[in-house]
Amino acid sequence: MRPSSGGRPDGPRRVADTCAERLQALEDREAIRDLIVSYGPLADSGDAEGVARLWIGDGVYAVDGFPEARGHAEIAALIAGPVHQALMARGCAHVLGSPVIDLHGDRATARCYSVVLAKAGEGWEPVRVAANRWELVRTSKGWQVTRRDNALLDGREAARVLFAG
Amino acid sequence: MRPSSGGRPDGPRRVADTCAERLQALEDREAIRDLIVSYGPLADSGDAEGVARLWIGDGVYAVDGFPEARGHAEIAALIAGPVHQALMARGCAHVLGSPVIDLHGDRATARCYSVVLAKAGEGWEPVRVAANRWELVRTSKGWQVTRRDNALLDGREAARVLFAG
Amino acid sequence: MRPSSGGRPDGPRRVADTCAERLQALEDREAIRDLIVSYGPLADSGDAEGVARLWIGDGVYAVDGFPEARGHAEIAALIAGPVHQALMARGCAHVLGSPVIDLHGDRATARCYSVVLAKAGEGWEPVRVAANRWELVRTSKGWQVTRRDNALLDGREAARVLFAG
Repeated sequence: MRPSSGGRPDGPRRVADTCAERLQALEDREAIRDLIVSYGPLADSGDAEGVARLWIGDGVYAVDGFPEARGHAEIAALIAGPVHQALMARGCAHVLGSPVIDLHGDRATARCYSVVLAKAGEGWEPVRVAANRWELVRTSKGWQVTRRDNALLDGREAARVLFAG
Repeated sequence: MRPSSGGRPDGPRRVADTCAERLQALEDREAIRDLIVSYGPLADSGDAEGVARLWIGDGVYAVDGFPEARGHAEIAALIAGPVHQALMARGCAHVLGSPVIDLHGDRATARCYSVVLAKAGEGWEPVRVAANRWELVRTSKGWQVTRRDNALLDGREAARVLFAG
Repeated sequence: MRPSSGGRPDGPRRVADTCAERLQALEDREAIRDLIVSYGPLADSGDAEGVARLWIGDGVYAVDGFPEARGHAEIAALIAGPVHQALMARGCAHVLGSPVIDLHGDRATARCYSVVLAKAGEGWEPVRVAANRWELVRTSKGWQVTRRDNALLDGREAARVLFAG
Protein backbone atom coordinates (compact mmCIF):
# COMPACT_ATOMS: atom_id res chain seq x y z
CA MET A 1 0.00 0.00 0.00
CA ARG A 2 2.93 2.32 0.75
CA PRO A 3 6.60 2.31 -0.30
CA SER A 4 8.79 0.09 1.86
CA SER A 5 10.89 1.78 4.51
CA GLY A 6 14.06 0.40 2.92
CA GLY A 7 15.13 -2.20 5.42
CA ARG A 8 14.74 -0.03 8.51
CA PRO A 9 11.84 -1.91 10.05
CA ASP A 10 11.66 0.22 13.16
CA GLY A 11 13.06 3.49 11.91
CA PRO A 12 11.19 6.79 12.15
CA ARG A 13 10.13 6.51 8.51
CA ARG A 14 8.32 3.21 9.17
CA VAL A 15 6.70 4.61 12.32
CA ALA A 16 5.50 7.57 10.27
CA ASP A 17 4.14 5.25 7.55
CA THR A 18 2.14 3.26 10.08
CA CYS A 19 0.97 6.50 11.61
CA ALA A 20 -0.19 7.74 8.22
CA GLU A 21 -2.17 4.56 7.56
CA ARG A 22 -3.93 4.76 10.93
CA LEU A 23 -4.67 8.45 10.34
CA GLN A 24 -6.08 7.63 6.93
CA ALA A 25 -8.44 5.01 8.39
CA LEU A 26 -9.70 7.48 11.01
CA GLU A 27 -10.17 10.21 8.40
CA ASP A 28 -12.01 7.75 6.15
CA ARG A 29 -14.41 6.85 8.95
CA GLU A 30 -14.99 10.53 9.71
CA ALA A 31 -15.64 11.29 6.04
CA ILE A 32 -18.09 8.40 5.71
CA ARG A 33 -19.97 9.37 8.90
CA ASP A 34 -20.12 12.97 7.71
CA LEU A 35 -21.45 11.90 4.31
CA ILE A 36 -24.20 9.76 5.83
CA VAL A 37 -25.38 12.26 8.42
CA SER A 38 -25.34 15.03 5.82
CA TYR A 39 -28.13 13.26 3.89
CA GLY A 40 -30.78 14.60 6.26
CA PRO A 41 -29.91 18.33 6.20
CA LEU A 42 -29.54 18.16 2.39
CA ALA A 43 -32.89 16.38 1.95
CA ASP A 44 -34.77 18.56 4.44
CA SER A 45 -33.47 21.79 2.90
CA GLY A 46 -34.62 20.52 -0.50
CA ASP A 47 -31.15 20.36 -2.07
CA ALA A 48 -31.89 17.68 -4.67
CA GLU A 49 -28.54 18.12 -6.47
CA GLY A 50 -26.62 18.02 -3.20
CA VAL A 51 -28.33 14.76 -2.24
CA ALA A 52 -27.63 13.23 -5.67
CA ARG A 53 -23.93 14.17 -5.50
CA LEU A 54 -23.49 11.96 -2.44
CA TRP A 55 -23.70 9.08 -4.93
CA ILE A 56 -21.35 8.17 -7.81
CA GLY A 57 -22.68 8.98 -11.28
CA ASP A 58 -24.53 5.69 -11.70
CA GLY A 59 -25.13 5.04 -8.01
CA VAL A 60 -28.31 3.33 -6.78
CA TYR A 61 -30.75 4.40 -4.07
CA ALA A 62 -33.30 1.67 -3.39
CA VAL A 63 -35.96 3.15 -1.09
CA ASP A 64 -38.48 0.63 0.26
CA GLY A 65 -41.82 1.27 -1.45
CA PHE A 66 -40.41 3.31 -4.34
CA PRO A 67 -38.95 2.28 -7.73
CA GLU A 68 -35.16 1.93 -7.55
CA ALA A 69 -33.44 5.22 -8.45
CA ARG A 70 -30.21 4.95 -10.49
CA GLY A 71 -27.99 7.88 -11.34
CA HIS A 72 -28.01 11.52 -10.25
CA ALA A 73 -31.14 12.54 -12.17
CA GLU A 74 -33.32 9.79 -10.71
CA ILE A 75 -31.97 10.30 -7.18
CA ALA A 76 -32.49 14.06 -7.40
CA ALA A 77 -36.04 13.40 -8.61
CA LEU A 78 -36.80 11.66 -5.29
CA ILE A 79 -36.15 14.98 -3.51
CA ALA A 80 -37.69 17.24 -6.16
CA GLY A 81 -40.71 14.96 -6.58
CA PRO A 82 -44.20 15.33 -5.09
CA VAL A 83 -43.89 12.88 -2.16
CA HIS A 84 -40.83 14.57 -0.65
CA GLN A 85 -42.07 18.09 -1.46
CA ALA A 86 -45.37 17.39 0.29
CA LEU A 87 -43.46 16.12 3.34
CA MET A 88 -41.34 19.30 3.37
CA ALA A 89 -44.42 21.52 3.17
CA ARG A 90 -45.92 19.62 6.10
CA GLY A 91 -42.66 19.78 8.07
CA CYS A 92 -40.29 16.82 8.23
CA ALA A 93 -36.98 15.53 9.50
CA HIS A 94 -34.95 12.74 7.87
CA VAL A 95 -32.81 11.74 10.84
CA LEU A 96 -29.96 9.34 10.01
CA GLY A 97 -28.51 7.53 12.99
CA SER A 98 -24.80 7.27 13.74
CA PRO A 99 -23.59 4.50 11.37
CA VAL A 100 -21.71 1.28 12.06
CA ILE A 101 -18.85 1.46 9.54
CA ASP A 102 -16.85 -1.41 8.03
CA LEU A 103 -13.84 -0.06 6.18
CA HIS A 104 -11.91 -2.15 3.65
CA GLY A 105 -9.30 0.01 1.92
CA ASP A 106 -11.04 1.96 -0.84
CA ARG A 107 -14.43 0.36 -0.16
CA ALA A 108 -16.72 0.51 2.85
CA THR A 109 -20.14 -0.54 4.01
CA ALA A 110 -22.18 1.20 6.69
CA ARG A 111 -25.40 0.33 8.45
CA CYS A 112 -27.69 2.79 10.20
CA TYR A 113 -31.27 3.67 11.04
CA SER A 114 -33.29 6.32 9.30
CA VAL A 115 -36.28 7.87 11.03
CA VAL A 116 -38.58 10.26 9.18
CA LEU A 117 -40.61 12.48 11.49
CA ALA A 118 -43.49 14.51 10.06
CA LYS A 119 -45.55 17.31 11.59
CA ALA A 120 -48.90 16.09 12.92
CA GLY A 121 -51.15 18.28 15.02
CA GLU A 122 -49.22 19.90 17.87
CA GLY A 123 -46.29 17.49 17.55
CA TRP A 124 -44.53 15.19 15.11
CA GLU A 125 -44.94 11.50 14.34
CA PRO A 126 -42.52 8.86 13.00
CA VAL A 127 -43.87 8.05 9.54
CA ARG A 128 -40.95 5.90 8.33
CA VAL A 129 -38.46 3.89 10.39
CA ALA A 130 -36.01 1.89 8.30
CA ALA A 131 -32.80 -0.11 8.20
CA ASN A 132 -30.19 1.21 5.79
CA ARG A 133 -27.14 -0.41 4.26
CA TRP A 134 -24.71 1.84 2.40
CA GLU A 135 -21.97 0.71 0.01
CA LEU A 136 -19.30 3.34 -0.51
CA VAL A 137 -16.19 3.83 -2.60
CA ARG A 138 -13.24 6.22 -2.46
CA THR A 139 -13.22 8.34 -5.62
CA SER A 140 -11.24 11.35 -6.83
CA LYS A 141 -14.00 13.45 -5.21
CA GLY A 142 -13.68 11.67 -1.86
CA TRP A 143 -16.02 9.00 -0.50
CA GLN A 144 -19.23 8.48 -2.47
CA VAL A 145 -22.17 6.10 -2.30
CA THR A 146 -22.43 3.32 -4.87
CA ARG A 147 -25.62 1.85 -3.40
CA ARG A 148 -28.01 2.57 -0.51
CA ASP A 149 -30.64 0.00 0.36
CA ASN A 150 -33.49 0.91 2.67
CA ALA A 151 -36.06 -1.44 4.20
CA LEU A 152 -38.86 -0.51 6.61
CA LEU A 153 -38.63 -1.99 10.11
CA ASP A 154 -42.22 -3.19 9.98
CA GLY A 155 -41.65 -6.83 10.91
CA ARG A 156 -40.73 -8.09 7.46
CA GLU A 157 -37.48 -9.96 6.82
CA ALA A 158 -35.87 -7.43 4.45
CA ALA A 159 -34.69 -5.03 7.15
CA ARG A 160 -33.15 -7.85 9.20
CA VAL A 161 -31.18 -9.00 6.15
CA LEU A 162 -29.80 -5.50 5.58
CA PHE A 163 -28.70 -5.21 9.20
CA ALA A 164 -27.35 -8.77 9.42
CA GLY A 165 -25.01 -7.77 6.59
CA MET B 1 0.50 27.23 11.11
CA ARG B 2 3.57 25.30 12.32
CA PRO B 3 7.29 26.07 12.11
CA SER B 4 8.91 25.11 8.84
CA SER B 5 10.90 21.90 8.78
CA GLY B 6 14.03 23.82 7.70
CA GLY B 7 14.40 22.80 4.13
CA ARG B 8 13.90 19.08 4.68
CA PRO B 9 10.58 18.81 2.87
CA ASP B 10 10.31 15.08 3.27
CA GLY B 11 12.27 14.56 6.49
CA PRO B 12 10.82 12.82 9.50
CA ARG B 13 10.20 16.16 11.21
CA ARG B 14 7.96 17.32 8.36
CA VAL B 15 6.13 14.00 8.30
CA ALA B 16 5.53 14.38 12.03
CA ASP B 17 4.27 17.96 11.56
CA THR B 18 1.75 16.87 8.96
CA CYS B 19 0.78 13.98 11.18
CA ALA B 20 0.21 16.38 14.09
CA GLU B 21 -2.03 18.63 11.99
CA ARG B 22 -4.16 15.71 10.83
CA LEU B 23 -4.40 14.41 14.40
CA GLN B 24 -5.45 17.84 15.59
CA ALA B 25 -8.26 18.01 13.02
CA LEU B 26 -9.55 14.59 14.07
CA GLU B 27 -9.36 15.51 17.76
CA ASP B 28 -11.18 18.77 17.04
CA ARG B 29 -14.00 16.92 15.31
CA GLU B 30 -14.24 14.46 18.20
CA ALA B 31 -14.32 17.29 20.74
CA ILE B 32 -17.04 19.15 18.82
CA ARG B 33 -19.17 16.01 18.43
CA ASP B 34 -18.75 15.24 22.11
CA LEU B 35 -19.76 18.78 23.06
CA ILE B 36 -22.91 18.68 20.93
CA VAL B 37 -24.11 15.24 22.01
CA SER B 38 -23.41 16.13 25.67
CA TYR B 39 -26.12 18.81 25.53
CA GLY B 40 -28.89 16.23 25.97
CA PRO B 41 -27.58 14.38 29.05
CA LEU B 42 -26.76 17.73 30.69
CA ALA B 43 -30.21 19.19 29.94
CA ASP B 44 -32.12 16.04 30.91
CA SER B 45 -30.26 15.70 34.20
CA GLY B 46 -31.12 19.34 34.96
CA ASP B 47 -27.51 20.58 35.01
CA ALA B 48 -28.23 24.20 34.09
CA GLU B 49 -24.67 25.37 34.79
CA GLY B 50 -23.20 22.48 32.81
CA VAL B 51 -25.37 23.37 29.83
CA ALA B 52 -24.43 27.06 30.06
CA ARG B 53 -20.69 26.27 30.19
CA LEU B 54 -20.91 24.69 26.72
CA TRP B 55 -21.15 28.30 25.50
CA ILE B 56 -18.57 31.13 25.72
CA GLY B 57 -19.35 33.79 28.31
CA ASP B 58 -21.50 35.91 26.01
CA GLY B 59 -22.65 33.04 23.76
CA VAL B 60 -26.12 33.01 22.22
CA TYR B 61 -28.74 30.27 22.22
CA ALA B 62 -31.66 31.17 19.97
CA VAL B 63 -34.40 28.57 20.55
CA ASP B 64 -37.35 28.80 18.17
CA GLY B 65 -40.36 30.12 20.10
CA PHE B 66 -38.35 31.54 23.03
CA PRO B 67 -36.60 34.89 23.54
CA GLU B 68 -32.93 34.73 22.52
CA ALA B 69 -30.74 33.79 25.49
CA ARG B 70 -27.35 35.51 25.71
CA GLY B 71 -24.68 34.66 28.29
CA HIS B 72 -24.43 31.91 30.88
CA ALA B 73 -27.15 33.23 33.21
CA GLU B 74 -29.81 33.45 30.49
CA ILE B 75 -28.86 30.08 29.00
CA ALA B 76 -28.90 28.40 32.41
CA ALA B 77 -32.32 29.96 33.02
CA LEU B 78 -33.71 28.02 30.04
CA ILE B 79 -32.89 24.78 31.91
CA ALA B 80 -33.81 26.01 35.40
CA GLY B 81 -37.00 27.68 34.14
CA PRO B 82 -40.58 26.39 34.31
CA VAL B 83 -40.93 25.05 30.74
CA HIS B 84 -37.91 22.76 30.95
CA GLN B 85 -38.62 21.76 34.58
CA ALA B 86 -42.18 20.76 33.65
CA LEU B 87 -40.82 18.65 30.78
CA MET B 88 -38.36 16.93 33.14
CA ALA B 89 -41.11 16.16 35.65
CA ARG B 90 -43.18 14.65 32.84
CA GLY B 91 -40.19 12.70 31.50
CA CYS B 92 -38.23 13.91 28.49
CA ALA B 93 -35.27 13.30 26.20
CA HIS B 94 -33.42 15.99 24.27
CA VAL B 95 -31.80 13.80 21.61
CA LEU B 96 -29.18 15.56 19.49
CA GLY B 97 -28.33 13.81 16.23
CA SER B 98 -24.79 13.11 15.07
CA PRO B 99 -23.63 16.46 13.63
CA VAL B 100 -22.25 17.40 10.22
CA ILE B 101 -19.09 19.33 11.13
CA ASP B 102 -17.27 21.98 9.07
CA LEU B 103 -13.90 22.75 10.63
CA HIS B 104 -11.94 25.88 9.75
CA GLY B 105 -8.88 26.16 12.01
CA ASP B 106 -10.02 27.66 15.31
CA ARG B 107 -13.64 28.04 14.16
CA ALA B 108 -16.24 25.48 13.21
CA THR B 109 -19.90 25.18 12.32
CA ALA B 110 -22.03 22.11 12.84
CA ARG B 111 -25.55 21.18 11.78
CA CYS B 112 -27.73 18.55 13.41
CA TYR B 113 -31.26 17.57 14.35
CA SER B 114 -32.72 17.87 17.82
CA VAL B 115 -35.70 15.74 18.77
CA VAL B 116 -37.45 16.28 22.10
CA LEU B 117 -39.48 13.28 23.22
CA ALA B 118 -41.89 13.66 26.15
CA LYS B 119 -43.78 11.02 28.14
CA ALA B 120 -47.40 10.66 27.00
CA GLY B 121 -49.63 7.86 28.24
CA GLU B 122 -47.89 4.51 27.90
CA GLY B 123 -45.25 5.83 25.52
CA TRP B 124 -43.50 9.00 24.44
CA GLU B 125 -44.22 11.54 21.70
CA PRO B 126 -41.97 13.88 19.69
CA VAL B 127 -42.97 17.36 20.92
CA ARG B 128 -40.19 19.31 19.17
CA VAL B 129 -38.23 18.41 16.03
CA ALA B 130 -35.79 21.07 14.93
CA ALA B 131 -32.85 22.00 12.73
CA ASN B 132 -29.82 23.30 14.61
CA ARG B 133 -26.80 25.27 13.47
CA TRP B 134 -23.91 25.63 15.89
CA GLU B 135 -21.05 28.11 15.63
CA LEU B 136 -18.05 27.11 17.70
CA VAL B 137 -14.65 28.52 18.61
CA ARG B 138 -11.49 27.06 20.11
CA THR B 139 -10.81 28.73 23.46
CA SER B 140 -8.35 28.16 26.30
CA LYS B 141 -11.04 25.84 27.77
CA GLY B 142 -11.35 23.83 24.56
CA TRP B 143 -14.14 24.11 22.00
CA GLN B 144 -17.13 26.23 23.04
CA VAL B 145 -20.32 27.43 21.39
CA THR B 146 -20.57 31.04 20.30
CA ARG B 147 -24.08 30.68 18.87
CA ARG B 148 -26.70 27.94 18.47
CA ASP B 149 -29.71 28.63 16.28
CA ASN B 150 -32.71 26.32 16.41
CA ALA B 151 -35.71 26.29 14.06
CA LEU B 152 -38.66 23.89 14.16
CA LEU B 153 -39.06 21.59 11.16
CA ASP B 154 -42.71 22.50 10.77
CA GLY B 155 -42.72 23.49 7.10
CA ARG B 156 -41.50 27.04 7.55
CA GLU B 157 -38.44 28.35 5.72
CA ALA B 158 -36.25 29.06 8.78
CA ALA B 159 -35.14 25.46 9.33
CA ARG B 160 -34.21 25.04 5.66
CA VAL B 161 -32.04 28.14 5.83
CA LEU B 162 -30.19 26.81 8.89
CA PHE B 163 -29.53 23.50 7.19
CA ALA B 164 -28.66 25.01 3.80
CA GLY B 165 -25.90 26.90 5.62
CA MET C 1 2.55 3.84 29.11
CA ARG C 2 5.20 3.55 26.39
CA PRO C 3 9.00 3.06 26.53
CA SER C 4 10.95 6.24 27.13
CA SER C 5 12.57 7.87 24.12
CA GLY C 6 16.00 7.63 25.78
CA GLY C 7 16.83 11.21 26.59
CA ARG C 8 15.82 12.69 23.24
CA PRO C 9 12.81 14.65 24.46
CA ASP C 10 12.09 16.26 21.15
CA GLY C 11 13.51 13.72 18.72
CA PRO C 12 11.46 12.10 15.97
CA ARG C 13 11.01 8.98 18.12
CA ARG C 14 9.31 10.99 20.88
CA VAL C 15 7.14 12.81 18.37
CA ALA C 16 6.10 9.43 16.97
CA ASP C 17 5.34 8.13 20.49
CA THR C 18 3.08 11.07 21.23
CA CYS C 19 1.49 10.63 17.82
CA ALA C 20 0.84 6.95 18.59
CA GLU C 21 -0.84 7.76 21.90
CA ARG C 22 -3.12 10.33 20.31
CA LEU C 23 -3.96 7.91 17.50
CA GLN C 24 -4.75 5.22 20.05
CA ALA C 25 -7.17 7.51 21.90
CA LEU C 26 -8.96 8.37 18.65
CA GLU C 27 -9.14 4.72 17.63
CA ASP C 28 -10.47 3.81 21.08
CA ARG C 29 -13.23 6.38 20.80
CA GLU C 30 -14.14 5.11 17.32
CA ALA C 31 -14.21 1.50 18.53
CA ILE C 32 -16.42 2.39 21.51
CA ARG C 33 -18.82 4.41 19.36
CA ASP C 34 -18.98 1.58 16.83
CA LEU C 35 -19.67 -0.97 19.58
CA ILE C 36 -22.51 1.10 21.05
CA VAL C 37 -24.24 1.94 17.77
CA SER C 38 -23.91 -1.70 16.64
CA TYR C 39 -26.25 -2.77 19.47
CA GLY C 40 -29.33 -1.73 17.49
CA PRO C 41 -28.65 -3.54 14.18
CA LEU C 42 -27.65 -6.68 16.14
CA ALA C 43 -30.78 -6.56 18.31
CA ASP C 44 -33.15 -5.73 15.45
CA SER C 45 -31.79 -8.51 13.25
CA GLY C 46 -32.31 -10.94 16.15
CA ASP C 47 -28.61 -11.78 16.60
CA ALA C 48 -28.77 -12.77 20.27
CA GLU C 49 -25.20 -14.14 20.35
CA GLY C 50 -23.85 -11.08 18.60
CA VAL C 51 -25.52 -8.82 21.16
CA ALA C 52 -24.18 -10.91 24.07
CA ARG C 53 -20.61 -10.81 22.71
CA LEU C 54 -20.57 -7.02 23.07
CA TRP C 55 -20.22 -7.75 26.81
CA ILE C 56 -17.39 -9.49 28.69
CA GLY C 57 -18.19 -13.01 29.85
CA ASP C 58 -19.75 -11.96 33.15
CA GLY C 59 -20.93 -8.54 31.99
CA VAL C 60 -24.17 -7.01 33.26
CA TYR C 61 -27.08 -5.49 31.34
CA ALA C 62 -29.55 -3.85 33.66
CA VAL C 63 -32.62 -2.91 31.62
CA ASP C 64 -35.21 -0.80 33.44
CA GLY C 65 -38.27 -2.98 34.15
CA PHE C 66 -36.47 -6.32 33.61
CA PRO C 67 -34.44 -8.54 35.96
CA GLU C 68 -30.72 -7.76 35.71
CA ALA C 69 -29.05 -9.97 33.08
CA ARG C 70 -25.53 -11.21 33.90
CA GLY C 71 -23.34 -13.17 31.49
CA HIS C 72 -23.73 -14.03 27.82
CA ALA C 73 -26.55 -16.56 28.28
CA GLU C 74 -28.80 -14.18 30.22
CA ILE C 75 -28.06 -11.25 27.89
CA ALA C 76 -28.74 -13.39 24.79
CA ALA C 77 -32.01 -14.49 26.41
CA LEU C 78 -33.21 -10.86 26.41
CA ILE C 79 -33.02 -10.93 22.60
CA ALA C 80 -34.24 -14.51 22.11
CA GLY C 81 -37.02 -14.08 24.68
CA PRO C 82 -40.72 -13.39 24.07
CA VAL C 83 -40.77 -9.62 24.73
CA HIS C 84 -38.08 -8.82 22.15
CA GLN C 85 -39.36 -11.42 19.65
CA ALA C 86 -42.87 -9.94 19.83
CA LEU C 87 -41.41 -6.47 19.19
CA MET C 88 -39.50 -7.78 16.17
CA ALA C 89 -42.61 -9.43 14.75
CA ARG C 90 -44.47 -6.14 15.16
CA GLY C 91 -41.57 -4.16 13.63
CA CYS C 92 -39.13 -2.26 15.81
CA ALA C 93 -35.99 -0.13 15.90
CA HIS C 94 -33.59 0.11 18.85
CA VAL C 95 -31.93 3.40 17.99
CA LEU C 96 -28.86 4.22 20.10
CA GLY C 97 -27.83 7.87 20.05
CA SER C 98 -24.28 9.05 19.43
CA PRO C 99 -22.55 8.55 22.82
CA VAL C 100 -20.65 10.97 25.05
CA ILE C 101 -17.42 9.04 25.75
CA ASP C 102 -15.06 9.42 28.71
CA LEU C 103 -11.87 7.51 28.05
CA HIS C 104 -9.44 6.60 30.85
CA GLY C 105 -6.69 4.34 29.49
CA ASP C 106 -8.07 0.80 29.36
CA ARG C 107 -11.42 1.80 30.84
CA ALA C 108 -14.19 4.03 29.53
CA THR C 109 -17.70 5.15 30.32
CA ALA C 110 -20.23 6.33 27.78
CA ARG C 111 -23.66 7.90 28.08
CA CYS C 112 -26.32 7.92 25.39
CA TYR C 113 -30.03 7.78 24.67
CA SER C 114 -31.87 4.72 23.48
CA VAL C 115 -35.18 5.10 21.68
CA VAL C 116 -37.26 2.04 20.82
CA LEU C 117 -39.75 2.68 18.02
CA ALA C 118 -42.46 0.09 17.32
CA LYS C 119 -44.88 -0.23 14.42
CA ALA C 120 -48.33 1.13 15.26
CA GLY C 121 -51.03 1.55 12.61
CA GLU C 122 -49.67 3.44 9.60
CA GLY C 123 -46.61 4.70 11.46
CA TRP C 124 -44.35 3.99 14.42
CA GLU C 125 -44.43 5.11 18.04
CA PRO C 126 -41.70 5.55 20.66
CA VAL C 127 -42.42 2.82 23.22
CA ARG C 128 -39.22 3.21 25.29
CA VAL C 129 -37.01 6.27 25.72
CA ALA C 130 -34.16 5.75 28.14
CA ALA C 131 -30.88 7.05 29.51
CA ASN C 132 -27.97 4.61 29.22
CA ARG C 133 -24.64 4.47 30.97
CA TRP C 134 -22.05 2.05 29.63
CA GLU C 135 -18.91 0.88 31.42
CA LEU C 136 -16.32 -0.57 29.05
CA VAL C 137 -12.94 -2.24 29.25
CA ARG C 138 -10.18 -2.96 26.74
CA THR C 139 -9.74 -6.74 26.45
CA SER C 140 -7.76 -9.05 24.18
CA LYS C 141 -10.86 -9.01 21.92
CA GLY C 142 -11.00 -5.22 21.79
CA TRP C 143 -13.38 -3.00 23.75
CA GLN C 144 -16.20 -4.79 25.55
CA VAL C 145 -19.00 -3.81 27.91
CA THR C 146 -18.69 -4.65 31.60
CA ARG C 147 -22.01 -3.05 32.55
CA ARG C 148 -24.85 -1.21 30.83
CA ASP C 149 -27.45 0.52 32.97
CA ASN C 150 -30.70 1.71 31.41
CA ALA C 151 -33.35 3.91 33.02
CA LEU C 152 -36.55 5.18 31.40
CA LEU C 153 -36.84 8.95 30.94
CA ASP C 154 -40.28 9.02 32.52
CA GLY C 155 -39.70 11.69 35.15
CA ARG C 156 -38.14 9.46 37.80
CA GLU C 157 -34.74 10.23 39.29
CA ALA C 158 -32.90 7.13 38.05
CA ALA C 159 -32.30 8.39 34.51
CA ARG C 160 -30.97 11.73 35.79
CA VAL C 161 -28.49 9.92 37.99
CA LEU C 162 -27.20 7.84 35.06
CA PHE C 163 -26.73 10.95 32.94
CA ALA C 164 -25.27 13.06 35.73
CA GLY C 165 -22.51 10.46 35.92
